[in-house]
Amino acid sequence: MKLDVVQTPIRVDGFRFAGVKAGIKQSGQRDVAVLFSERPAHVAAAFTSNRVKAAPVLVGLERAGAGRLQAIVVNSGNANAFTGRAGLLAARTMCRLAARELGISETLVIPSSTGRIGVPLPMASIEAGIRAACQALSADGFHSALEGIMTTDAFPKFDVERITLGGRSVTLAGMTKGAGMIAPRMRLVPQATNLTYVMTDAAVSAPALRKALARALPDSFNAIVVDGDTSTNDTAVLLANGFAGNPSIHGQSKDFEKFGRAVSRLMQRLSRMVVKDGEGATRVVDIRVRGARTVREAERAADAVARSPLCKAAFFGGDPYMGRVICALGYSGAVFDPHKIEIHLNDVRVVHRGEELVSAVENEAAEVTRQPEFQLAIHLHAGKGSAFRIASDLTPDYVRFNSDYRT
Amino acid sequence: MKLDVVQTPIRVDGFRFAGVKAGIKQSGQRDVAVLFSERPAHVAAAFTSNRVKAAPVLVGLERAGAGRLQAIVVNSGNANAFTGRAGLLAARTMCRLAARELGISETLVIPSSTGRIGVPLPMASIEAGIRAACQALSADGFHSALEGIMTTDAFPKFDVERITLGGRSVTLAGMTKGAGMIAPRMRLVPQATNLTYVMTDAAVSAPALRKALARALPDSFNAIVVDGDTSTNDTAVLLANGFAGNPSIHGQSKDFEKFGRAVSRLMQRLSRMVVKDGEGATRVVDIRVRGARTVREAERAADAVARSPLCKAAFFGGDPYMGRVICALGYSGAVFDPHKIEIHLNDVRVVHRGEELVSAVENEAAEVTRQPEFQLAIHLHAGKGSAFRIASDLTPDYVRFNSDYRT
Repeated sequence: MKLDVVQTPIRVDGFRFAGVKAGIKQSGQRDVAVLFSERPAHVAAAFTSNRVKAAPVLVGLERAGAGRLQAIVVNSGNANAFTGRAGLLAARTMCRLAARELGISETLVIPSSTGRIGVPLPMASIEAGIRAACQALSADGFHSALEGIMTTDAFPKFDVERITLGGRSVTLAGMTKGAGMIAPRMRLVPQATNLTYVMTDAAVSAPALRKALARALPDSFNAIVVDGDTSTNDTAVLLANGFAGNPSIHGQSKDFEKFGRAVSRLMQRLSRMVVKDGEGATRVVDIRVRGARTVREAERAADAVARSPLCKAAFFGGDPYMGRVICALGYSGAVFDPHKIEIHLNDVRVVHRGEELVSAVENEAAEVTRQPEFQLAIHLHAGKGSAFRIASDLTPDYVRFNSDYRT
Repeated sequence: MKLDVVQTPIRVDGFRFAGVKAGIKQSGQRDVAVLFSERPAHVAAAFTSNRVKAAPVLVGLERAGAGRLQAIVVNSGNANAFTGRAGLLAARTMCRLAARELGISETLVIPSSTGRIGVPLPMASIEAGIRAACQALSADGFHSALEGIMTTDAFPKFDVERITLGGRSVTLAGMTKGAGMIAPRMRLVPQATNLTYVMTDAAVSAPALRKALARALPDSFNAIVVDGDTSTNDTAVLLANGFAGNPSIHGQSKDFEKFGRAVSRLMQRLSRMVVKDGEGATRVVDIRVRGARTVREAERAADAVARSPLCKAAFFGGDPYMGRVICALGYSGAVFDPHKIEIHLNDVRVVHRGEELVSAVENEAAEVTRQPEFQLAIHLHAGKGSAFRIASDLTPDYVRFNSDYRT
């Protein structure tokens, strides 16, 4: 992919970035990135709940819990997952090399990797790439770093929030990557191949960052479903270096809500970009389930619809037929009375008291389902549990792409 | 689809069959079928575990438990699912009409429906169709009845077993339909849109039929996965009318094992045909998981691989890369040590002690995965639980087909 469009540089005070071409990706694109804060930043991080955790995730889990971090070193083109003891050594070596180049402690660096699973990292290329990236670090390097973390992405995904905290102007800038193998279920440390990094120059304590990340994840990255395949490498990191000079925000600060909402908004927009890019996706469907007996059952119901190949193929077809949605709800494991189900497509009621109304509202309903983005709201009338998912459609291009690409 | 190839007639002593064109399917193909035993037969049946059960399933659940049945009345083109109280009345009306035409008790008839969900049955066409089918019943009507139960099937699916029981030659003949919305999880009566009917002229008690069906299901219809969407209408019925004159078989009879094995073989072959037909499928993959902590965990692991869009797209591509399989095992919920996983593709070991060997055996492995059928054997080395699944690949044709067909 060509990325030679001139981008407005994104800057976050005290952060420097770089992305370089180290020859790991066959395409010859940038494949090593370094994100660096000029002083140790507070950090909160979340990692995949997949039982097979990539080596960089295992290292990240050890280190992000300490609450302080100064650099993230990333390679794309190889996931360093299912690579055994050698993979773990390689992940640590990535950090040690970056630390040495940056003149900081190794424990202030975490690694990320994304790409093919089960292949040893080409360490000579990685090492040369890390050295070159550390030398290329620049306040204007955000976009080249972003290019360095991308794999099957059709477009770069980033966004910015600017708010005022304690009279100081503060910037939050996020980058994310991922298009396939997307159904993140990340857990916070003292526990996504979605990689997301949000950097802010605000002064925020590590527990407050954790609280903000925990609030933002359920309706952002942990709500998105492209294929339902939860990666071995998913990682989300929120870094705050305090360069903005605002009074430091703690979990109970008056300004916490304002900061937390900005993190949530930013992560929601970033996660939506991942779904939009879902390897051939043509539609984004917001699935909201209400009235389940429990939150867990609401999640199961929403997941069943978000993952059902039949529902997703109908989304691709722009078909308002709800039979497949009802079928998916039925096998989801949620307990409800089919005669009470109510479903809306945007504002069009298509199922009422367990009766499908689509034939009566076919034209209106089809107008909704032919949009590139629409809402599917399901009420089970069985309790108070609710859940939210953002799903892509399933397209012939997704299948074609994934039948000859190896992620 | 054209079905004018001359078929060898399949006969089962004492059974008569018919399939007619009642105008329910837009294609104008046969869409009403009746399967009739000249005297009440012993029966065992299993129905979908989907919470949204079609009206004919609800009626079947009430009646099949009694252990005796004489007729099955089926329509295709409309699932009579999510049709409320009117749908339930319609399902009962189908039985009453058939009973009247056949001169038998209504309680000896069960209905089946398959097709679109959420649309009222066109009762005038159904009634005319049932009358015509009852009049057309014939010992040679097996193939026309089979045509009458088909929907998106690309080819008719049937098979026959002949064994000797107590010195008598006995026939078991089975028909099945279904290509999409396939991931049956059927439960036995006093508890599958896969419809499967197996008729035998053997004399077998209802409890013995139940035992044979319960044994046959886990490795046949409950093991198959096309899309992972468990239908509202799945039904499997095993009927034995005793016309062969063998000494009646009970659960403890010496001949039970022989009979049970014949049922299992027949149902395994029939279920495999459904996967082969999986709406555009090009490959059938036998997934065997061994060494899980429990059977339930083995099932979760096998299901995760059988349903993963990424694994299924790789199957389509004939790609022996195991990274996606390992990723699916990792998020399945099964508990295991990644360093102990062992995976074979047929006889080729591709993962050993948690290390991917594919690059070393790439050519051999790719030879396996380019076959139309192959085995994927996974050993988790965590316990003694095992499970079996038969999965189709995911193809661009599946998506294209299901984006404009409404099942």
